[in-house]
Amino acid sequence: MALHVKGGLFLTLEGGEGAGKSTQARLLADALREEGYEVVLTREPGGTPGAEEIRHLLLFGEADLSWRSEIMAHMSARCDHLDNLIVPALAAGKIVVCDRFHDSTLAYQGYGIGMGDAERLAFIAGLRSLVACEPALTLLLDLPRDQALDRLHARGGRTDRYEGQAEAFHRRVLDGFDTIAEKNPDRVMRLNAARTPDALSRSILEIVQNRIAQVSDQGDA
Amino acid sequence: MALHVKGGLFLTLEGGEGAGKSTQARLLADALREEGYEVVLTREPGGTPGAEEIRHLLLFGEADLSWRSEIMAHMSARCDHLDNLIVPALAAGKIVVCDRFHDSTLAYQGYGIGMGDAERLAFIAGLRSLVACEPALTLLLDLPRDQALDRLHARGGRTDRYEGQAEAFHRRVLDGFDTIAEKNPDRVMRLNAARTPDALSRSILEIVQNRIAQVSDQGDA
Repeated sequence: MALHVKGGLFLTLEGGEGAGKSTQARLLADALREEGYEVVLTREPGGTPGAEEIRHLLLFGEADLSWRSEIMAHMSARCDHLDNLIVPALAAGKIVVCDRFHDSTLAYQGYGIGMGDAERLAFIAGLRSLVACEPALTLLLDLPRDQALDRLHARGGRTDRYEGQAEAFHRRVLDGFDTIAEKNPDRVMRLNAARTPDALSRSILEIVQNRIAQVSDQGDA
Repeated sequence: MALHVKGGLFLTLEGGEGAGKSTQARLLADALREEGYEVVLTREPGGTPGAEEIRHLLLFGEADLSWRSEIMAHMSARCDHLDNLIVPALAAGKIVVCDRFHDSTLAYQGYGIGMGDAERLAFIAGLRSLVACEPALTLLLDLPRDQALDRLHARGGRTDRYEGQAEAFHRRVLDGFDTIAEKNPDRVMRLNAARTPDALSRSILEIVQNRIAQVSDQGDA
């Protein structure tokens, strides 16, 4: 008999390229499943067939979209992901572990671009208010850019539109994540991602177990 | 020496399938060019390389997007179209003739779906307020569905996602266009599209010439 969390639990992992988000999302999902929870492991952009089609266009499409169009396309993918996967899973009491979510839109398309921040940030905020769905807990994997670069070089493989951006872009993205963490201390937890995957994974699992206990206490009260 | 309109002139053609929008848009663009104006003839969804990629996904993609995602994808295409084509053309004093625009989103994705209208209409209105760009004049080509069906059967060819919808959907779309026309009497002009293309084209050209004269008078005042 699977364990459920009343109202579900929506967990997101965020951070720059090479911080280990995908690995940690998988390790967390595995550990929670071993404890008996029903877990949906997913990612953005993408996560549903429709959102994956939009992901492909965003990451590997031939045309450069205007910044408003690019942000709107990310939100389009997010809507499909929410409506067809995340919201139904939470309603069924499942734990959703998502590799990137709205904070990445804000960090990459908002803070990362640099010029005209205020207009971009207001546009993103307006869209977010139309598409309301907040994670219960966001794990921000913090890794200095130099260490991330070492990992990315070791990893190799195909480079997408965002990975291929200039260094200054990636450093602004990391600064953007810092700003997001400072503005959302109750939701976003920063974690040192320079540790071994196993050590980081144990920290993450402990944090999530504590959050599940809190949610369960609230549910019982 | 090309004629310009100060601040440009943004004209849209709207209506159900088979009403003759594409033909009339082309005839109007040709006639205005003969008069010496610089004209950009375009269409939605699409009109720019990025927006055409999204168009393809929307009309022929394999996945069904959730309604919020579908609307957001149309708005994403519209943003690229505005930012990379329409707004620069208007700023250069050109006349933009666009086959479908935001009214089609409202008629098809808002009124056409039928169920849950209020939520959809509010979502579309919220997005529209974030992406402000209103046509100066919208020509609504009005053709009863039965006559449109006769034309569509004669035309043949590949059927896209919207053309392939049930009859009730298309009739709600037409009712939606009627509602839009009633709510925007200063912008939307209804035209009987059951006439021959030439007769309809002459009416449209006369209306547009009058509008250009008005705009020029205002510019001179």
